[in-house]
Amino acid sequence: MVDITPIHGGKTNNMLLATMTTEEINELEGYVMTISSSIEEEMDKLLPKANETDESRLFDAMRYSVFAGGKRLRPVLVMATNDLLRGKRPRALRVATAMEMLHTYSLIHDDLPCMDDDDLRRGKPTSHKKFDEATAVLAGDALLTQTFEVLADRATHNDSGVRCELISLFAQSAGAAGMVGGQMMDIIAESSDIEALDQGALARLQRKKTGALFSACCESAIILNGASKDEHHRLTSYARNIGLAFQMVDDVLDEVSTEEEMGKSVGKDAALGKATFVSLLGVEGAKKQAEFLCAQAIQFIQPFGRDARMLELLARFVVARGH
Amino acid sequence: MVDITPIHGGKTNNMLLATMTTEEINELEGYVMTISSSIEEEMDKLLPKANETDESRLFDAMRYSVFAGGKRLRPVLVMATNDLLRGKRPRALRVATAMEMLHTYSLIHDDLPCMDDDDLRRGKPTSHKKFDEATAVLAGDALLTQTFEVLADRATHNDSGVRCELISLFAQSAGAAGMVGGQMMDIIAESSDIEALDQGALARLQRKKTGALFSACCESAIILNGASKDEHHRLTSYARNIGLAFQMVDDVLDEVSTEEEMGKSVGKDAALGKATFVSLLGVEGAKKQAEFLCAQAIQFIQPFGRDARMLELLARFVVARGH
Repeated sequence: MVDITPIHGGKTNNMLLATMTTEEINELEGYVMTISSSIEEEMDKLLPKANETDESRLFDAMRYSVFAGGKRLRPVLVMATNDLLRGKRPRALRVATAMEMLHTYSLIHDDLPCMDDDDLRRGKPTSHKKFDEATAVLAGDALLTQTFEVLADRATHNDSGVRCELISLFAQSAGAAGMVGGQMMDIIAESSDIEALDQGALARLQRKKTGALFSACCESAIILNGASKDEHHRLTSYARNIGLAFQMVDDVLDEVSTEEEMGKSVGKDAALGKATFVSLLGVEGAKKQAEFLCAQAIQFIQPFGRDARMLELLARFVVARGH
Repeated sequence: MVDITPIHGGKTNNMLLATMTTEEINELEGYVMTISSSIEEEMDKLLPKANETDESRLFDAMRYSVFAGGKRLRPVLVMATNDLLRGKRPRALRVATAMEMLHTYSLIHDDLPCMDDDDLRRGKPTSHKKFDEATAVLAGDALLTQTFEVLADRATHNDSGVRCELISLFAQSAGAAGMVGGQMMDIIAESSDIEALDQGALARLQRKKTGALFSACCESAIILNGASKDEHHRLTSYARNIGLAFQMVDDVLDEVSTEEEMGKSVGKDAALGKATFVSLLGVEGAKKQAEFLCAQAIQFIQPFGRDARMLELLARFVVARGH
């Protein structure tokens, strides 16, 4: 279930959000639910089953985090881009599932006591709370490793050249030059002076930490289906914009929501004196900036017309998402 | 530098070790040094360079652990099998380098406080001691991710089908069904009754934890060069045997060596009441068993004749290795 309550509903006169009708919300919700259930079916097939052996704890932990819910935003982004490019669904589904495995690994490791030290995720105990730290580290490692196993498998695509391209994309987006590099920057920023991080530096950090995977979602669908240079530019620009907007809204929600609403601890960034888009722009400023980015994202995909329907609704959802 | 002092030198009448002459030792040492320096050159090219940005700490940590020394046993195994199969060296070198990245990631995570909690590795502070826990987790994650990036790159092999096979092999050996699964079993065994683990269970654990990567070393060279079914069987049986023997010798060294000799903390397994091959077989029993396994390994590769020279010396080294 996706709750798409606009975060500042009737109080805004912003066209983007104001024009999101109940029908549109239902349309997006239906799409997301279809994709989510396909992803979970695929995950269930791919992940090792709990058994009577000693590794069972590891398998349990992998499944626990993967099936803990979540918005499945990244796989939906893969599938919506794939639909736009009129690609076959089954193979895109495997790529989307691999993306969700990769994302889940990153959440498990980010929540560790030595990282963001979070006890709650999606309203449930985080992996190291439910199991223990060692199991959480290993479950993350195993999910990261299986991501590449899934992509390398012939079932993902007949053409091994395509599979290698996908693996390169995932590895580059997730590795030292992408997500992991961004997480390192985030941790270092946390321990240094708030003045040290201006909006440019924070955007650079977030483009790596969150943006790299968002872009990879769209790019993976392009690799699967091919696209012209112009289409490639439009779709990756769309992804970069909503990636950054997503993080801004996250910062807003961290400031204005309760732990209960969010299903995770809130207000920690402010307590740590950490630079966020809210600390730099204020709540209203960050909202406005996120809306601007999503409007830009939508402009990039306008030429696709009706085919870009779901990506457009997704961009609005990023701004409008509740908790 | 590889120190190949037989662990029970003149005191044994075991043919295997007794027949290791100074010339043979020099021959193996020369080979290992050549491969090691090529691997380090390749690593230096592949790993991100420290720079003035905030990710620099991550890049430093990746390089720190990779260049901390070590026996480079796994890459040597890749190269020696590749030589036996008369494969081209440059591409095998990339695969061997990827294998060493993967191995290094596993060491960094295994040393974490929540895992084996080791302060020393190869005579130097472990990653989380030199840097911090968050950096160590991320450096491991980044090395694991880059392993697949290196393998997926065209420079590894022209044929993308071969690259995908290598990626599948690495992922299966390192993931939940292999190394990570073995590490989970090890951690669970540590916290349960010593009686619970008999020799069969311990061998099963170690075949996953250590053996899977050893086998993958030989198999990766087979994927690169092709091999008959019989050759495949001989080489993977060789690898499985020396993998298990390697672990037995490790347990022996953990019992009889000093921290200074080993470059890492020793005697921890015994202190934890953890089942090891020494606790189950005694020091002499574990040595004998390791010798038996290596003798078997050598028998498997006998039909390759002179071409198996380096693999034979390596098998002896596994038993004879000092510290």
